[in-house]
Amino acid sequence: MTTKKTNRTEIGTLGEFGLIDHLVSSFSTKNPSTLTGVGDDAAVLDHGDAMTLISTDMLIEGIHFDLSYTPLKHLGYKSIVVNVSDIYAMNGTPEQVTVSIGLSNRFSVEAVEELYAGIKKACLNYGVDLIGGDTSASNKGLIISVTAIGRAKKEKIVYRNGAKVGDLLCISGNLGAAFLGLQILEREKQIWQSNPDIQPDFDNQDYLIGRQLKPEARFDMIELFAKHQLIPTSMIDISDGLASDLFHICKQSNVGAFLEESGVSVHPDTEQQAIKFGMDPITCALSGGEDYELLFTINPNDFEKVKYLPDVYIAGEIINEDQGVMLHTKGGNIHPITAQGWQHFNKGKGPK
Amino acid sequence: MTTKKTNRTEIGTLGEFGLIDHLVSSFSTKNPSTLTGVGDDAAVLDHGDAMTLISTDMLIEGIHFDLSYTPLKHLGYKSIVVNVSDIYAMNGTPEQVTVSIGLSNRFSVEAVEELYAGIKKACLNYGVDLIGGDTSASNKGLIISVTAIGRAKKEKIVYRNGAKVGDLLCISGNLGAAFLGLQILEREKQIWQSNPDIQPDFDNQDYLIGRQLKPEARFDMIELFAKHQLIPTSMIDISDGLASDLFHICKQSNVGAFLEESGVSVHPDTEQQAIKFGMDPITCALSGGEDYELLFTINPNDFEKVKYLPDVYIAGEIINEDQGVMLHTKGGNIHPITAQGWQHFNKGKGPK
Repeated sequence: MTTKKTNRTEIGTLGEFGLIDHLVSSFSTKNPSTLTGVGDDAAVLDHGDAMTLISTDMLIEGIHFDLSYTPLKHLGYKSIVVNVSDIYAMNGTPEQVTVSIGLSNRFSVEAVEELYAGIKKACLNYGVDLIGGDTSASNKGLIISVTAIGRAKKEKIVYRNGAKVGDLLCISGNLGAAFLGLQILEREKQIWQSNPDIQPDFDNQDYLIGRQLKPEARFDMIELFAKHQLIPTSMIDISDGLASDLFHICKQSNVGAFLEESGVSVHPDTEQQAIKFGMDPITCALSGGEDYELLFTINPNDFEKVKYLPDVYIAGEIINEDQGVMLHTKGGNIHPITAQGWQHFNKGKGPK
Repeated sequence: MTTKKTNRTEIGTLGEFGLIDHLVSSFSTKNPSTLTGVGDDAAVLDHGDAMTLISTDMLIEGIHFDLSYTPLKHLGYKSIVVNVSDIYAMNGTPEQVTVSIGLSNRFSVEAVEELYAGIKKACLNYGVDLIGGDTSASNKGLIISVTAIGRAKKEKIVYRNGAKVGDLLCISGNLGAAFLGLQILEREKQIWQSNPDIQPDFDNQDYLIGRQLKPEARFDMIELFAKHQLIPTSMIDISDGLASDLFHICKQSNVGAFLEESGVSVHPDTEQQAIKFGMDPITCALSGGEDYELLFTINPNDFEKVKYLPDVYIAGEIINEDQGVMLHTKGGNIHPITAQGWQHFNKGKGPK
């Protein structure tokens, strides 16, 4: 009774992005207020004076987080951060959030209070108001669905599809740390599961673990853009990994990209830990995800404006679509990147 | 590691509404654009010319729906209806929705297509655009989180807190049918589980089952209000049951209510089926929920405007808070109603 058809296509054959594209391809938008729908960091609604930005994310226990090493307060904090990050990635200002949670009966009121303490801290830090949502029972585990609502002047909004050939590729902050933080947590969990008497060894790994458990969204970048009157030509937040998110920009802008390995900032702790794990640091940066840094492109005429921005790295250039998406390694080689970048630098030990 | 405290309070001790109140009581709103946050059918954002309305709901398999008798297409349709209904309950017009889904691997692409076919049909019927969302894996079952975005002129928005003593209590349509539809489906499921050879007996129960599986939101009421220049003083959609939703209005307006049983419309099929199940029809209407009709109050000066509205029933009056929330039965008795109304008409067979 759940489906009338007898054919069965596994979802894995389409992949997450393929599935969304497939499902929404037959939908069209009709309301004059709908400027942009599915396909960017946030949807854009024309509400007169300024535009309204809407972004939504669902986090499911066992899929997106593991409560055996994720404190609920951090999880609450992160659930807000990942959504406001999408509004910043449109060069907008988040103003409100809604939070819906599904809870199995293993959660106590005190546990939910911890979750909401983290949500509240993030709301205060990012200046957003909690305006709605609901709580409900769940059969299994914790589900968190957050929608962020933001605002931006129409002329300031930055989409994924505005990159032009010759634009400079810029990245805020360093990449790969959140991924390695996750690897450390997973390793310690496995050790602990095989021998609960061994204490976890998190020495000198605060930075990496912090980047995984309590990421921050780059509102400072949006403020710097405004201060320097800089409007990027395209932008996305790096949630899936630099390779995957660069592909989103290239695909939607119909361009290629030439990425300089030397322009991708990697924290010394990331570098050391990657080597300990037998991984290539650039692979972690390209494919790790969850750093919530901003990837953006600027018109070369704005080079002077971006040159002195703290914590922004110029990491390449936009090229013709038919030239592809390429990585220029520190060793002087040029490789094509794919959205599953690490597989093509096959070291045998990639994420996922 | 999931909570620092050693106390444990079960969520059941607070109840769903108690939990939300408890969790959000320490949150305050800061942004000038946040007019109203948690506590009404939808949040209201001041976006200049018109207000933006935001409503969100999460539906979880096994809690909110049972796929053994809910076709996925109907479920997709209903997931949109329950959210746009919240926007209508503010006297607003829904314009956009976001849909996030979590799917276990038992769902095929074809099954998800059915779900989205229902979502699409509802989007077309209610004139809303799908503008975002995501799909992700889940460990167990199907999770659907929908956010509806609507618009309304500031002076037209109707809140839950505007009912005044002397206002007339009005209800669109009839109540209790969706609840009885659910009882029929549950009964047939149990019979089928104990003996799979018996075919389900749904004869002459199309109306009740339809009200449960494919409810509609009352956009026609919003259009009639506009046509007759009628602005209710308070309004809510009846999702939890008339008693519970009347309590929301009374609590937030600081008033009581005097409800006439004779003013509550009950469909003949509801009446018959209730009696078959040994239930009191008014109990089903008071406590059933999921009818998605509108409960609203009007200034008595607007009596002429509402008198000739099709499918609107005047069902009582707003009284002083200290007079309580009372039901005047057809038998001439006056009973106090509580949010769990049916328990106090104890027939031994109430819902829940």
